[in-house]
Amino acid sequence: MKPFMNEDFLLTTDTAKKLYHEYAEKMPIIDYHCHLSPREIAENIQFKNITELFLGGDHYKWRYMRAMGVDERLIRGDGDDYEKFLAYAKCISLAIGNPLYHWTHLELKRVFGIEEPLNERTAPAIWENANAMLATEEFRARRLIEKFNVKVVCTTDDPASNLEYHEQIAKDPTFKVKVLPAFRPDAAIKIGMPAYKGYIETLSEVSGVKIECAEDVVKALTQRAKFFDEHGCRASDHGLDTVPYEPIDMAKVNEAFALAMKGEKPCDALIDVYRTYILVSMGRVYKELGWAQQYHVNAQRNNNANAYEKSGADIGFDSISDEKVAYKLNRLLDEQEKTGNLPKTILYSLNPTDNYVIGTTIGNFQTESGIPGKLQFGSAWWFCDQRDGMVDQMKTLAALGALSTFVGMLTDSRSFVSYPRHEYFRRILCEILGTWVENGEYPADWDALKTIVEGICYNNAKKYFSF
Amino acid sequence: MKPFMNEDFLLTTDTAKKLYHEYAEKMPIIDYHCHLSPREIAENIQFKNITELFLGGDHYKWRYMRAMGVDERLIRGDGDDYEKFLAYAKCISLAIGNPLYHWTHLELKRVFGIEEPLNERTAPAIWENANAMLATEEFRARRLIEKFNVKVVCTTDDPASNLEYHEQIAKDPTFKVKVLPAFRPDAAIKIGMPAYKGYIETLSEVSGVKIECAEDVVKALTQRAKFFDEHGCRASDHGLDTVPYEPIDMAKVNEAFALAMKGEKPCDALIDVYRTYILVSMGRVYKELGWAQQYHVNAQRNNNANAYEKSGADIGFDSISDEKVAYKLNRLLDEQEKTGNLPKTILYSLNPTDNYVIGTTIGNFQTESGIPGKLQFGSAWWFCDQRDGMVDQMKTLAALGALSTFVGMLTDSRSFVSYPRHEYFRRILCEILGTWVENGEYPADWDALKTIVEGICYNNAKKYFSF
Amino acid sequence: MKPFMNEDFLLTTDTAKKLYHEYAEKMPIIDYHCHLSPREIAENIQFKNITELFLGGDHYKWRYMRAMGVDERLIRGDGDDYEKFLAYAKCISLAIGNPLYHWTHLELKRVFGIEEPLNERTAPAIWENANAMLATEEFRARRLIEKFNVKVVCTTDDPASNLEYHEQIAKDPTFKVKVLPAFRPDAAIKIGMPAYKGYIETLSEVSGVKIECAEDVVKALTQRAKFFDEHGCRASDHGLDTVPYEPIDMAKVNEAFALAMKGEKPCDALIDVYRTYILVSMGRVYKELGWAQQYHVNAQRNNNANAYEKSGADIGFDSISDEKVAYKLNRLLDEQEKTGNLPKTILYSLNPTDNYVIGTTIGNFQTESGIPGKLQFGSAWWFCDQRDGMVDQMKTLAALGALSTFVGMLTDSRSFVSYPRHEYFRRILCEILGTWVENGEYPADWDALKTIVEGICYNNAKKYFSF
Repeated sequence: MKPFMNEDFLLTTDTAKKLYHEYAEKMPIIDYHCHLSPREIAENIQFKNITELFLGGDHYKWRYMRAMGVDERLIRGDGDDYEKFLAYAKCISLAIGNPLYHWTHLELKRVFGIEEPLNERTAPAIWENANAMLATEEFRARRLIEKFNVKVVCTTDDPASNLEYHEQIAKDPTFKVKVLPAFRPDAAIKIGMPAYKGYIETLSEVSGVKIECAEDVVKALTQRAKFFDEHGCRASDHGLDTVPYEPIDMAKVNEAFALAMKGEKPCDALIDVYRTYILVSMGRVYKELGWAQQYHVNAQRNNNANAYEKSGADIGFDSISDEKVAYKLNRLLDEQEKTGNLPKTILYSLNPTDNYVIGTTIGNFQTESGIPGKLQFGSAWWFCDQRDGMVDQMKTLAALGALSTFVGMLTDSRSFVSYPRHEYFRRILCEILGTWVENGEYPADWDALKTIVEGICYNNAKKYFSF
Repeated sequence: MKPFMNEDFLLTTDTAKKLYHEYAEKMPIIDYHCHLSPREIAENIQFKNITELFLGGDHYKWRYMRAMGVDERLIRGDGDDYEKFLAYAKCISLAIGNPLYHWTHLELKRVFGIEEPLNERTAPAIWENANAMLATEEFRARRLIEKFNVKVVCTTDDPASNLEYHEQIAKDPTFKVKVLPAFRPDAAIKIGMPAYKGYIETLSEVSGVKIECAEDVVKALTQRAKFFDEHGCRASDHGLDTVPYEPIDMAKVNEAFALAMKGEKPCDALIDVYRTYILVSMGRVYKELGWAQQYHVNAQRNNNANAYEKSGADIGFDSISDEKVAYKLNRLLDEQEKTGNLPKTILYSLNPTDNYVIGTTIGNFQTESGIPGKLQFGSAWWFCDQRDGMVDQMKTLAALGALSTFVGMLTDSRSFVSYPRHEYFRRILCEILGTWVENGEYPADWDALKTIVEGICYNNAKKYFSF
Repeated sequence: MKPFMNEDFLLTTDTAKKLYHEYAEKMPIIDYHCHLSPREIAENIQFKNITELFLGGDHYKWRYMRAMGVDERLIRGDGDDYEKFLAYAKCISLAIGNPLYHWTHLELKRVFGIEEPLNERTAPAIWENANAMLATEEFRARRLIEKFNVKVVCTTDDPASNLEYHEQIAKDPTFKVKVLPAFRPDAAIKIGMPAYKGYIETLSEVSGVKIECAEDVVKALTQRAKFFDEHGCRASDHGLDTVPYEPIDMAKVNEAFALAMKGEKPCDALIDVYRTYILVSMGRVYKELGWAQQYHVNAQRNNNANAYEKSGADIGFDSISDEKVAYKLNRLLDEQEKTGNLPKTILYSLNPTDNYVIGTTIGNFQTESGIPGKLQFGSAWWFCDQRDGMVDQMKTLAALGALSTFVGMLTDSRSFVSYPRHEYFRRILCEILGTWVENGEYPADWDALKTIVEGICYNNAKKYFSF
């Protein structure tokens, strides 16, 4: 029996161990998509205890505790922090097969040097131990990032943001990590939402563009994109949930806009023609700026009305959707390709049954020479961000396309201690590659393997996004 | 090479063997969902030969024989029983990779102590041998159940049933196994079927409720549910095929009802608003009774019109559907959750591509503290009830939720010798867990592992259903 | 570490090795569905260099090169052949996990005896070496086919074809391989396409049937099917993309026909009623002729409009569709089954999420005694034609039906050197079976295993198609 999560965790062959320890482990981290708060980085916040650090913003953990029958008081409620930590410890000790089990223990090991499994018995000592460390300068937000050899962090930002914290961080010579914004114009695209009208007014104000039609929305977003670009932005991100596609007809696009500005919800077809228009128009802008655009699809959000009413979004009541993507996604991308304006694009679906569709769709638009993997099948996302999900994503990408061009892992996280997920990913990557080599399915060509591993861990992303 | 199906069948690691032999193997069985005939248990039937026992009611075997090109005469026709057994023996000997191969040999081993593989050569001796045993008292229906250490059997019963056989069994002190009814009101929900009107009349008569509108249907079903509850019922079961959801509008619900009672088929939207109404209304009743409700979706039944016309349903002409489930299923559950009336719920889909949707959907409604796994991702069902199907279901549940809360296996079977499927399931469970421990992915914490294994095998179901 | 692609490539157990080397490896090949050019076989063409042989018609390779960022000039453009080969060598050397990596090296080994991995360094010598061989008689088209012990090749032919090359090949006693046509009436079925009207005119001329209504289309196709049958045809093939089903209504069928002949595109429902009619009608013809019909579904073609406009179809811009298949496919097959006119049928879906639907759908129509596996779950196709895809298809077929009846592999290829894909398939098959035997899940019954392996490799197809 292999010791619990030792240095060769997830690595079963000599080749896998060599690939990981000699190549992967040494590469710096680019976290090109996450939800860290730029304010918290700018302010270099300190955590009052491990409950705040671990459970403060992590809907994965909340959700798991609910599944274990824990009272909401000890999850997001007004329960005592120590009690909450105990409740989590008790739950996690039975979380066999859940990525939280590994993430939690990697976090304990890599952040605190705590090696023992977390459970009801070990929780009290770990509480003391970890909290003592958290009280020191070494465990403030910035040092947590630096500890993991992170070179670039891309936060997720609203186009209306003034990016003041990014500016503040950039000006501070004591912190070497690049903290760049990413452009997420969801609020300007979700025309069916009640908040749309108010958002457009804000956008108009911030951009200085008077917005009277859909073309003006693009104009304003373009102004903001350029502003983001000046602050080092290299990517946009789109939470599309479903893939929109309707042939663009400006009369309809503006009918949708007009309805929404009157506070009415346009019908689904009008919503989609508007969404298509904005995405296609912004694709052209991203292309000009040399950005990559990211599309996230098949998330189904806020499924529990009571929870949403009480506490809003992103607290662990989302799940996977099963809407079709193949036809519309290809039409949406081709609409951009036709005019030569398709930017670099990364496609993520929350539903792993889309893997083969995504893995072959990207191959339809790899027409720009000199950009290996211009279209990317994004790393296993959210519910798929675990071992089997990653293995599926990487094997599918390898079988249907060019794994060697993959820009690799991102955390997509709200937590300062989720960088071990890059380690997790790299171990899994090296295990897959190592198995193929050990089985004689790929030669032990160490130069090629080094290129592939270091590429996927770091070099590909660096080049792809031009960091 | 490992011997054929020896005591360590499906167990490859020391940990897996320990988990199975020390914990799993010893636990009694709760078969909380099956299709055994309560009459046959009450009458303690005897089988005239192994053909009747093995092939009498098993559409899995019929279907496989048809795929092998066997004439229907030797499947469900008037062929000689010995010839039928020979035909089955010949077919099964080539059934590599099919769960029938394992089930058949587990049945031979555990029921009859017959260890040799069944094929054309061994069939004659097995026929003699098994038939001799079947002629004894030890091989009547009740002893077959007792042989497998079964504590509870839940049959599947129509609400109109008078449960006479359950009463008869309960009164008989010589038989210790609890045989409880489960409430399956499909006939009252399938408003589009020709039999609906006649069924409502029967239901009215049995319940003593005059049924003149949809509300009366709920009233009558509620009366029956209480009657079932008095007979120990702890669960309902719903064969939904597709997931219904339409916002409840009583005018439309009763329009559907009125049409159906006139012998007309309501349109799909009306059918679904009626189905939504009944399910939501009955959910409230189940919640009050402390029952669990089971939803079975994505079966596509009676695909061969000739076979259906000739011989009716459930004879092996069903297959898997690919209708979408994510949106409607969440709306249907949330409709119950909103008012605080969502009972314990187990979700089964026949299509394994729904696994990730189901595995994340349950997490949206785990809001009742003190009921670990209130929402359950049901055990791999029917066509998925085989090794790969079980592995997928358990790994998905583990990765997306809390495997330790799982209520585990059921047979869903019409046969008195299908209890080895619980053994099959337990071996697969222990193999999965064992592999994780051996690989250092979970510590060798035997207390935790014992809790998990014994929980999934027996304790969780006992507690969840309050048997 | 196992040597790179040695004689036990993909075989990890003794049983797998025995099954492959003693049984599978020795069986001849039946390639019952491919896209080889009968003209090129008749003319016994010679290849001017390895670029022409490898890259001349292989959209898998083109697509992969595009994903690696190679300029189209070096893919399908006017680049120099040597430069193209170098570009391919460079790309392929990083194609870990892609079936092209294995196919390319099997092609080098089995066709040329070249054992070293292809990469930038080895490319110049391989170029010289392979080209020298290609200049000899031993490397003309026919010898390439014979080298692989191929007994039967079924090309894919338009019903309007006069089959002159098939006749020419059949008359030539020096070439022993049967080269048979397969009947692919897509052009007569795709009523929504601009080319339909012109095609019907051609079909009318060739068949001598005056075509004035949909019934005449069937009459003409029937004439052609009989003509094909006289030339040894044993199968039809249908590229359906989506599964059509509408209840047949001759008024509507002919409305669709009339519109199309006026150059107008019928609406989707009319297109589908026409498609249903032709498929059901032709099914009856195939049944009479004893043919097998093949349905290919869920391909989504020509997704890149620029590429299609510039260079047409089948050049690497196709991907996987995610349209539903379960309901319509069953209705379409049952429409044929009802009247006793369902021929032998092979179902292929390009989307592996359909595997469970296909694997259970075939079981609904296995009603013709004496034809084991009358309905077949077709071998992993196109994007699925790689190790994981094949493993999934075979394990799914085994779990849900009768693997032993499987007619096995086909190349579906446009290339004269793709026969190693049969070897690839056989190794994977033997590895799966071997693992089950080694694990004690199936007895080491060598007679049964020999029957199964030789059946799937050759005997089943020979019998099924009556070659």
